[in-house]
Amino acid sequence: MINRLYDTSLSLLTDLYQLTMAYGYWKSGKAEQEAVFNLYFRKHPFQGGFTIACGLSSVIDYLNEYRIDEEDLEYIGSLTGSDGKALFEKEFLDYLRDMEFKCSVDAIPEGTVVFPNQPLLRIQGPVLQCQLLETPLLNLINFQSLIATKAARMRLVANEDALLEFGLRRAQGPDGGMTASRAAYIGGFDATSNVLAGKLYGIPVKGTHAHSWVMSFESELESFETYALHMPNNVTLLVDTYDSIQGVENAIIVGKQLRERGYELGGIRLDSGDLAYLSIEARKLLDDAGFEKTNIVASNDLDEYIMDSLKIQGAKINVWGIGTKLVTAFDQPALGGVFKLAAIKNEAGEWDYKLKLSEQAIKVSTPGIQQVRRFKDSKGFISDMIFNIETPLIGKSTMVDPYDFTKTRSFSETIQFEDLLVPIFAKGVLIYHLPSIHETKERVEQQLAHFHKGIKRFVNPHTYPVGLEKELFDMKTELIVKLRAGK
Amino acid sequence: MINRLYDTSLSLLTDLYQLTMAYGYWKSGKAEQEAVFNLYFRKHPFQGGFTIACGLSSVIDYLNEYRIDEEDLEYIGSLTGSDGKALFEKEFLDYLRDMEFKCSVDAIPEGTVVFPNQPLLRIQGPVLQCQLLETPLLNLINFQSLIATKAARMRLVANEDALLEFGLRRAQGPDGGMTASRAAYIGGFDATSNVLAGKLYGIPVKGTHAHSWVMSFESELESFETYALHMPNNVTLLVDTYDSIQGVENAIIVGKQLRERGYELGGIRLDSGDLAYLSIEARKLLDDAGFEKTNIVASNDLDEYIMDSLKIQGAKINVWGIGTKLVTAFDQPALGGVFKLAAIKNEAGEWDYKLKLSEQAIKVSTPGIQQVRRFKDSKGFISDMIFNIETPLIGKSTMVDPYDFTKTRSFSETIQFEDLLVPIFAKGVLIYHLPSIHETKERVEQQLAHFHKGIKRFVNPHTYPVGLEKELFDMKTELIVKLRAGK
Repeated sequence: MINRLYDTSLSLLTDLYQLTMAYGYWKSGKAEQEAVFNLYFRKHPFQGGFTIACGLSSVIDYLNEYRIDEEDLEYIGSLTGSDGKALFEKEFLDYLRDMEFKCSVDAIPEGTVVFPNQPLLRIQGPVLQCQLLETPLLNLINFQSLIATKAARMRLVANEDALLEFGLRRAQGPDGGMTASRAAYIGGFDATSNVLAGKLYGIPVKGTHAHSWVMSFESELESFETYALHMPNNVTLLVDTYDSIQGVENAIIVGKQLRERGYELGGIRLDSGDLAYLSIEARKLLDDAGFEKTNIVASNDLDEYIMDSLKIQGAKINVWGIGTKLVTAFDQPALGGVFKLAAIKNEAGEWDYKLKLSEQAIKVSTPGIQQVRRFKDSKGFISDMIFNIETPLIGKSTMVDPYDFTKTRSFSETIQFEDLLVPIFAKGVLIYHLPSIHETKERVEQQLAHFHKGIKRFVNPHTYPVGLEKELFDMKTELIVKLRAGK
Repeated sequence: MINRLYDTSLSLLTDLYQLTMAYGYWKSGKAEQEAVFNLYFRKHPFQGGFTIACGLSSVIDYLNEYRIDEEDLEYIGSLTGSDGKALFEKEFLDYLRDMEFKCSVDAIPEGTVVFPNQPLLRIQGPVLQCQLLETPLLNLINFQSLIATKAARMRLVANEDALLEFGLRRAQGPDGGMTASRAAYIGGFDATSNVLAGKLYGIPVKGTHAHSWVMSFESELESFETYALHMPNNVTLLVDTYDSIQGVENAIIVGKQLRERGYELGGIRLDSGDLAYLSIEARKLLDDAGFEKTNIVASNDLDEYIMDSLKIQGAKINVWGIGTKLVTAFDQPALGGVFKLAAIKNEAGEWDYKLKLSEQAIKVSTPGIQQVRRFKDSKGFISDMIFNIETPLIGKSTMVDPYDFTKTRSFSETIQFEDLLVPIFAKGVLIYHLPSIHETKERVEQQLAHFHKGIKRFVNPHTYPVGLEKELFDMKTELIVKLRAGK
């Protein structure tokens, strides 16, 4: 079952309530009613100032193969309720069997910097289908965006240093590891230790040896020499099995042997102890012995905060191996993305706009068929405006701060902008050309370069302005007032 | 690629350094040298007092299908070093092609309560094979044990209440969600919302409707009535879309309609607001209307601490829906399991025992071919002793506290015990009969019942005594002294 992880259709990778609601829509004649749902998050992860959108390529794969097959139907048909009778009528199973995916999907491309309340993905189609897809879409986008964001934060600290992802053994399962390798590369990592990720995604792979290699020999020096003898074009020696400084000295002995053979000592790796002190000492020893270009790799539960601290302490580390804290997004292992109904077409063929109320303003959803317009000037991006595409924007646009209606901002007709959501599926047909993973990685770098550094700092980052276009704001307000009064 | 997640062999789901070390072993004629590695963790997750072993069934699936295929070999053969030349010789690829898994594996069955430093899994076989398997074995066992433990903690608080796992949308990818559903069920949950987990693992599935169902109707009451009309044998109404108390009143109206039709209102669900206050008020309203048996389900970022607090506040919740905090193990999303070389056979056919030194005593590994003996008396389990199976235990056994050698304890010959590790693979052949998921779930319950409640509390749990058998302790000490002096 593990090889070819899940040898079954993944179309039932959803919550049961999506199926029971689907049944309810179908029974009440609403199954094909056209609806619009937005997928968005409410707060940046890691108390940060930005998020990297990621996961769309998996969404495309998922939707492309979406089909409820006989095995699925047999299982659904076997489910029973409190009276021991079937939950679902046979005719409903027939409906699901014949169902073809016919939603339209618009989304913000992977690698784009995004902000709270922006629809990362908007799906429009039969309410029954949108509903069934809520869970898998959230699952795919929440996790990947989280890891790409974590990786981008580490890239910001690393600056020009190399970043290696080493997390597979501590990841949340095989696919947790695979997905993290991919999202980490997109977010800014240079390579992974994960061989299967290398094979499937074309990510560079890196690795040399572990403590067990050293321990399996009589002495550290013998283990280093044996390794360098057999793989002279890939030598980074792990020096901390017994004593790190002694280990560096042994590595230098081997480095000299390598040079005589026409090779170079690629690096030494520190995996425990005081990484600031040890890296400074190791750099001195290596430089004094003429190994100025030998890398110093560090690992051991690193994250962006420890990296930052090590840099401030003058650590001489130029390659960072990062595992657990990256691949699980340790300090916040889930992004709280949600999927909310924003409009549904009534019998007259008009949109009824919808929102979910909450006592907390941040949890009230926004209605409308939303698009995000990102304004820019010569220095970069300046603010984003969410608008309803059913409201034509003519001339000057005004946006309102969704949490403080007294704060507004107007943009002239001539200002430059781009609209972030692009068409992915049109009525079930894929019309998007997916960029390569390398292009997506480059997009992250370019995107971040166009934002003010204030949003990129870790402590009290600047809040990038995201507003609602005034007509959308007014429509939302009206709807809230109506709902609070009404029900 | 997402349906049938990874349509490829998962044999390369490992770190590159496992392959480069494998190459080194092969080049230096050590590939087939017999080695023993132990997989263990050093600290309970969540600052707790116990851990539930989980993941063995995935390990069995993985090892059963372990085979490096042509596609894998082609990829490995394409990897190059710093000089642009191939990392691996063609003959090595031939060796991998012909390689058959021939290790012996002993492991502690899934569902067993385990403690730091105990080998959850011990693998013995060609050092090259053990090394390649380090990463996938850790990946599979670390995550599943983490989630099963988290679930067991929630079960301890829930007592007789029902526990539902709702986490798929926030899980770390599709397989993160699937695996969490399985491990949560084993650890003590009653059901999941994850339909695919229901289908593949035979876990009960639960679910009714979401806010979007309510929002898609003109009024909440209409939405409740429509739902109950069509699925009267599965009615739990989500009451907080607009106003929770009003929602309970609407649910009661529908409950009365259901009764007239011969059905019962199964439950109401609260998903926001003050769950203590609202559940108490809801209970009163329901009871006053004659719905004493209607469940009150609560959800909204719950974990064992919030559940505990709600119970102390007298909340009238008897069904708990738990998502993010469970399936990601939010407060500690990784278990730090490690895999350490413990012995290697020398040319004379004798074991050379091995350990990894560290400045921190907790990080020094233990040598030997380890087994765990769990002693019990009439009241339950009293302590565990790790011993080297190469040292026959005759008569009285004495164990030593690994961190304080002045603390010893002796056990008479007549004391009852069980040895926890059981044979899984013998020289590559599966010889273990895997219990069903339901049997494993029951094992967790039975196991926990046999431990003193002190280890099960959340704050400053009691440390269950785990010692090293005296001869093993002495051998370890001797080896440490030798290594500290030597290298």
